This record gives sequence, structure tokens and C-alpha cells, in this order.
Amino acid sequence: MNVIIDLCVIPMGVGVSVSEYVVACHEVLKEAGLKTELHAYGTNIEGEWDDVMDAVKACHEKVHVMGAPRITTTIRMGTRTDRTQTMEDKISSVANRL
Amino acid sequence: MNVIIDLCVIPMGVGVSVSEYVVACHEVLKEAGLKTELHAYGTNIEGEWDDVMDAVKACHEKVHVMGAPRITTTIRMGTRTDRTQTMEDKISSVANRL
Amino acid sequence: MNVIIDLCVIPMGVGVSVSEYVVACHEVLKEAGLKTELHAYGTNIEGEWDDVMDAVKACHEKVHVMGAPRITTTIRMGTRTDRTQTMEDKISSVANRL
Amino acid sequence: MNVIIDLCVIPMGVGVSVSEYVVACHEVLKEAGLKTELHAYGTNIEGEWDDVMDAVKACHEKVHVMGAPRITTTIRMGTRTDRTQTMEDKISSVANRL
Repeated sequence: MNVIIDLCVIPMGVGVSVSEYVVACHEVLKEAGLKTELHAYGTNIEGEWDDVMDAVKACHEKVHVMGAPRITTTIRMGTRTDRTQTMEDKISSVANRL
Repeated sequence: MNVIIDLCVIPMGVGVSVSEYVVACHEVLKEAGLKTELHAYGTNIEGEWDDVMDAVKACHEKVHVMGAPRITTTIRMGTRTDRTQTMEDKISSVANRL
Repeated sequence: MNVIIDLCVIPMGVGVSVSEYVVACHEVLKEAGLKTELHAYGTNIEGEWDDVMDAVKACHEKVHVMGAPRITTTIRMGTRTDRTQTMEDKISSVANRL
Repeated sequence: MNVIIDLCVIPMGVGVSVSEYVVACHEVLKEAGLKTELHAYGTNIEGEWDDVMDAVKACHEKVHVMGAPRITTTIRMGTRTDRTQTMEDKISSVANRL
């Protein structure tokens, strides 16, 4: 089952700037070979469900190892069985009509 | 790694009423033996990361089998390494001070 | 336009425990006269759109005044025009079938 | 108070394809003069709190007028008092280190 998710990982208890943790998550996602696209409030990720969710777990583990005692993450996740749809498809279905 | 999540599964393309799908998800979560608590805009779930996320995947599979061609789900998920904290702990840390 | 939202306010840069800020938000919501229901990962709120969203803004202002330099909030919000539906309606449409 | 939000509006009860509603929301946001950036699972929006939230309300009103009887929206919203930060700043704070 393919999934497109939108991931936002928030480390808590590490101060106000969290970019180093977001960078580390991107390295985790890249090592997992997943297709990603960064935006200003999260990251789009596309792939097979288990690969994507294993990578999300690896992000939590990495951010804890880096010293964050608490993490709160939000995810949007979409699956469909009627047809395949990539992240680019989703954007162009809207952008082509703007 | 223990996790507390807040899950909201939205089937698309099945009309305006979606309660039968939410009921089916609760059955999936119960069969998985997870601790759950329903609220008006989602369900709190507590458990071991893999057990919880496997159940979320099973919810998507179930809702697709029931006929929904598309699903969009939102999740909040929290982990912490500084101490254990249950769903009841989270509520009472606030409710006791209201 | 009536709205039911699910609100989760996360103060950043104030350490790992955030319950005092959540308590303060509940006081703001109560002063606004809104119907609320606390759960383990947020708060359900029901009311007229402007009243609800003004209260969310007041929560951000309050949490900043309390000393949090940064806040990241997640909201689910639902409106419908086909019929009225309360938070209790939403829960019972599922709970009655479990 | 400036805010950066990430908005995802899901019309329910209108079938599986919702791009025409997303397009309409973008027109609402553009008419409001807000800075926006589309991604595969939502839209980043930056502006003064009231302007941004008025536009979100206008999106709900527009999508209902277009025929959707029910809408479920998710928002992430961030405010900070320690410094100003644009959507571009947020992206470059991560992207420059990848």
C-alpha cells in the first residue's frame, strides 16, 4: 500500500530552535531512500507504507538520541485504491488550474 | 518505545456520514488489544509503537475493504524518554489544576 | 457558522512540561464561554466560528505572555451545512455502535 | 501577531476528487492578498493572524457554497515573539544544512 504523508516533528525541551533536529530527520529519510519534499511547516514523503512509517519511527529514535526528552509529531497520511497518485500529481492537479 | 497518538481517519468518496468506518476502526483497535479513548474528533491510543502503527495500517486496509477509495488521516503522536506517561497522566496533569 | 474543533497548543522553548500552559488555555476557553472537553492529546471545542477562533488567538497571546517565545498549534476543524451536530452527537454516533 | 499556518481543507460528501475545491480555496487566499505556497498535502500561508484566519473561514464558506455539505480541515499554526521568521526563513534554516 503506497502512502503520501506530511510529517512535522517537534522536539520539546530543547529550546526554541529545532532546525538541527529537522535536518537530522531529513538525513534519516534520505538514508531510507524515500522521496521527500521539504516545505515551511513539514515534509511530504511518499513510499510504501511500511518503509515510510519505519522512517518516521527512526526519526523519533534519532531525535531522542540527539537529546530531546519529548517529541510531539503531527502527520497527515493519504492512501487511495482507485488509482495511483504521486506527490507531483497532487500538486499539478491544483497548480495547473490556478 | 511507548507512544500516545491521537488518530482521526477520514474516508473520502463515501458520502457525508462516516461513522460506520470509525466504528470499524475501533473494532480493529480493540482486536489489537490497544488502550483507546474515543473523543468528538478522534481517538486517543496508547501502546508500543509498532503495535499502534500496525493497527493504524490495519484501519486503512479495513476502511478500503469496506469500500472507501480514498482515506486521509491525521495523527498526533508523542513519545518521551524522560519518564513514562499514560493517557490518564496527561489528562490529570491538566484536569487536576482546572 | 458553527464549528467543532480539536485544539492542541504546544509551547516551545519552555522545557519539557507544558501543563501549566494547557491549564491557562482552558481558563481562556472557559472565560470565552465555550463548550470544551479535554482529552489526552488536545481539547474539543464547540461554538460559533468567530468565538472559537478568537479564543484560539487569545490562547496564543496568553501563552506568549506567560513566557513561551514560540508556539506550534494543531487544529482539526469541522463545519457542516446538512445538519447540526454537537460534540456529543459525534461521539454517540460511534459509541452507540461499539 | 504574525502567523505561519499549514492548511489542508477536505470537503466530504462530494466524491473522491477534491481538487476543484482546493483551487477555489487558493483563489480565496489570493484575493485576500496572502502569501501562499502550495505543497502536496496542503498550503503554507503567512500573514497577520486575523487576515489569515478570516481567509480560512472564507475558504469554508466558499467550499460549502460550492456544494460540499461537510468539511474537515487540519491546520498547523506557528507564532513566535523572539524574532520574525518568514516561510522562506523556515525552509532555508533546514535546507541550507542538507
